[in-house]
Amino acid sequence: MVLVRQEIGDVLRDFRLQKGRTLRQVASKASVALGYLSEVERGQKEASSEILASVADALDTPISIIMREVSDRLAVVEGLTIVPDTVPVDMVADFDADLVAR
Amino acid sequence: MVLVRQEIGDVLRDFRLQKGRTLRQVASKASVALGYLSEVERGQKEASSEILASVADALDTPISIIMREVSDRLAVVEGLTIVPDTVPVDMVADFDADLVAR
Repeated sequence: MVLVRQEIGDVLRDFRLQKGRTLRQVASKASVALGYLSEVERGQKEASSEILASVADALDTPISIIMREVSDRLAVVEGLTIVPDTVPVDMVADFDADLVAR
Repeated sequence: MVLVRQEIGDVLRDFRLQKGRTLRQVASKASVALGYLSEVERGQKEASSEILASVADALDTPISIIMREVSDRLAVVEGLTIVPDTVPVDMVADFDADLVAR
């Protein structure tokens, strides 16, 4: 069963780390308990819509952007996104350059 | 404050109506109480991730598709989507045809 709270937790944590903030900073700014936010990030607690709005605000990120990322990750989990299994062009170019350099 | 549960409720109802199903049918297939599903659809109750997964399943719709629609609507509410204020071409064509018919 694909659980939305798991992806929400991952996304909230990733956005927080991307912005270089600590759990303590975000919890404090969002006025939620640190332990609670930690459980939400680990997908162990469902965040209410009010908490989600506060945390998104504390992360200076629109809630729609957070939910878009959540839906994108859910699509991957559900196998609805084609993850290319070819090597990106940039890497191929680097690889060729390496070969030529030899 | 933009509330995710409001958009989730609207989206679940819209998908259900699009598929021509009754509250009773979806609640029964998802094994949730009819009154509870009705409250979720009206944005009055937070649906747990398990309930969301069951309802999505009962609607034969991947949860990622539901959350994508939720994020799109949240973006509109947050003013992050540009809604064109010009008249759609089809309507303009009809309007011109009307004028010519006079």
